[in-house]
Amino acid sequence: MTVELISVGTELLLGNIINTNAAYLSEKCAALGLSCYYQNVVGDNETRLGEILKQSLLRTDIIILSGGLGPTQDDLTKEVVAKILGRACKLHQPSKESIITFFAKRKREITDNNWKQAMIPEGSIVVENPNGTAPGIIIEDNNKIIILMPGPPNELIPMFEEHIQPYLQKKHPNVLLSKIVKICGIGESKVETMILDLINNQTNPTIATYAKTGEVHLRITAQSNNKKQAEELISPIIIELTKRFGNAIYSVEEKTSLEKSIVDLLIQKKLTVATAESCTGGLLAARFINVSGVSEVFQSGHITYSNESKSKVLGIDKNMIQQYGAVSSQVAKEMAIKLAEISGADVTIGITGIAGPEGGSEEKPVGLVYIGCNICGNIFVKQFHFSGSRSKIRENAVSSSLHLVRDGILEL
Amino acid sequence: MTVELISVGTELLLGNIINTNAAYLSEKCAALGLSCYYQNVVGDNETRLGEILKQSLLRTDIIILSGGLGPTQDDLTKEVVAKILGRACKLHQPSKESIITFFAKRKREITDNNWKQAMIPEGSIVVENPNGTAPGIIIEDNNKIIILMPGPPNELIPMFEEHIQPYLQKKHPNVLLSKIVKICGIGESKVETMILDLINNQTNPTIATYAKTGEVHLRITAQSNNKKQAEELISPIIIELTKRFGNAIYSVEEKTSLEKSIVDLLIQKKLTVATAESCTGGLLAARFINVSGVSEVFQSGHITYSNESKSKVLGIDKNMIQQYGAVSSQVAKEMAIKLAEISGADVTIGITGIAGPEGGSEEKPVGLVYIGCNICGNIFVKQFHFSGSRSKIRENAVSSSLHLVRDGILEL
Repeated sequence: MTVELISVGTELLLGNIINTNAAYLSEKCAALGLSCYYQNVVGDNETRLGEILKQSLLRTDIIILSGGLGPTQDDLTKEVVAKILGRACKLHQPSKESIITFFAKRKREITDNNWKQAMIPEGSIVVENPNGTAPGIIIEDNNKIIILMPGPPNELIPMFEEHIQPYLQKKHPNVLLSKIVKICGIGESKVETMILDLINNQTNPTIATYAKTGEVHLRITAQSNNKKQAEELISPIIIELTKRFGNAIYSVEEKTSLEKSIVDLLIQKKLTVATAESCTGGLLAARFINVSGVSEVFQSGHITYSNESKSKVLGIDKNMIQQYGAVSSQVAKEMAIKLAEISGADVTIGITGIAGPEGGSEEKPVGLVYIGCNICGNIFVKQFHFSGSRSKIRENAVSSSLHLVRDGILEL
Repeated sequence: MTVELISVGTELLLGNIINTNAAYLSEKCAALGLSCYYQNVVGDNETRLGEILKQSLLRTDIIILSGGLGPTQDDLTKEVVAKILGRACKLHQPSKESIITFFAKRKREITDNNWKQAMIPEGSIVVENPNGTAPGIIIEDNNKIIILMPGPPNELIPMFEEHIQPYLQKKHPNVLLSKIVKICGIGESKVETMILDLINNQTNPTIATYAKTGEVHLRITAQSNNKKQAEELISPIIIELTKRFGNAIYSVEEKTSLEKSIVDLLIQKKLTVATAESCTGGLLAARFINVSGVSEVFQSGHITYSNESKSKVLGIDKNMIQQYGAVSSQVAKEMAIKLAEISGADVTIGITGIAGPEGGSEEKPVGLVYIGCNICGNIFVKQFHFSGSRSKIRENAVSSSLHLVRDGILEL
């Protein structure tokens, strides 16, 4: 079956936002065994959106539209789809109630234009949206499937994963099973080199590599008549990958993030963790606290961005900062050591670096980051040179500190 | 004049890479006053690419293709364009020499397929590519302009800025000017209701609304013969919006984030800030530290996720936590008060809440968040009910605390 994406939004055409939804949906559809031949972006314009939709209906089985479901007048995706398919929009009572609940929860006033979001084309499957007021819509029409989803990724992604993906899985006759192998601490090209023979010989299952910040994910996908057979096809590949990558594999679970795998390790070994961050400013702690149930192991986090707070909060000797500079291996190490003293946590991490764009020098350029770790008394520091924007450098520093902590715990 | 983008690459259709080129080119074209009505993504497939190109030639003046100019067999953008336009490809000697120089510099061997990149459709303007082996190509054909650029952003961006942009500027002397008005603390539908008359009467300039977490951005865009006239068209709209939204407007600068506007306020009023976070786990601090130069005002941040750390780090009475619960207005307020005592910061914020998905109860459901603020001795707490995923609830809590702090400082 073929799938085609239509992203609706003038802000995409103006280049104000990057179309991450298209990449997300394409990746998901590929994993479902659906062939995507076209992605389209069109503005909030009735004529042009209508033209694109008519064309897509001629050449593709499943059309996924995203965006243009908002409450305002320029949001017209649903109205155009209903018109082209010749379906009237009617008030959908459960969606109306969801909107009322949504606003009541936030103690915000409902304006009249919000009711537009509860108007649904006749004969649709309505998909609930707990993260916003625009419900998703599935229309089966003349052997075609038309799916409408809200544009904001924090609404689209959970909706796709909870409702649209299972729906498409049912519609697609074949069993397409996909497993993930998540690797940290090895670059994408190195990973690829290490499995080039497997990639070159792949037919079923296939192996695809996806680079994430500081991680590489391998997706192994098998096509078969039944789930058991698909599992039997994938299993030897997973065993082979485990042989090759060993401890660098932090999870083979779809939903397990690197931070979750570390929190699981900490729980299992009955260890607590504390963080002291300078340039990353809380992002490392935020990754840990991303994990529901982290309170068992997360002792405390401190953001000591200024030199003063490094001394005041962590008790680092001012002379040391003056002698070596706040961005130095000595201070990173001391952050981890002092943090262990004041918090009593078993695992402590200190990050200090220059995230830029200002503040770099020839000796200490933008991107220089030191990460100090104390893993149950085993103390070490590592120097990194990252490149890219301020946020890219900070993200890389956080990922690297997670790898270091994980390796350190595994070596205990 | 209209422009249309065709991004060529199977890796885009598989979702392996995000189409940042489309956002980049669209933004640049909008700034040149070119109207972009369509973006297309198509794979390295002769038939489908040919179809798209034929369609684009019917509806658009300038077509920018990117990708598919590589040396391998599956790169066929140039060949398809030449075929559709009925132009033969001929060896372009300067491009051949550039390829030789490129490989010599890198001490790499030239493989035969590289000469394919020096084959150029007859009558083209060839654009040099110092960052790769694929030259850019401009073809003027039958009142249409077809532009081909390499796909890698580190080749495409400098090529556009150095050659394509000046070329387009000459072809199209019109000016399209766009200004932004950034609003916080008012929902999108309410914002629209407040400016419905302006939206309904818009022709030139136009007003578009964009919802972000906890913010709404209004983009005002004017088209004119010169920049001064465009500015004169936009200026009265900005004045009118300022009248209507007053202090809710935190910036009219493209690059100023909410956190940057608050840091500017703090610097201006010579105030320092410190944060104590429970459920947001460092995300508020990370927003502040997003701002380059924040060290002047950011005193310290603390992540006190466990009850123990709330007592140990902030010195909150254990009995108070037991009596009211860690998620309570009393504890949120006390977090702000105690933090002011230990840090000496002028502005302190304490956030405590239930981000879920576990940990909610009937009395204190998932999404309940208390934010305590101390703005130079003016102490207050606010209760919120957010919904959605764990990360959505945390993001909303952070945005809301930024609004509260901003309002508090403005009231000083």
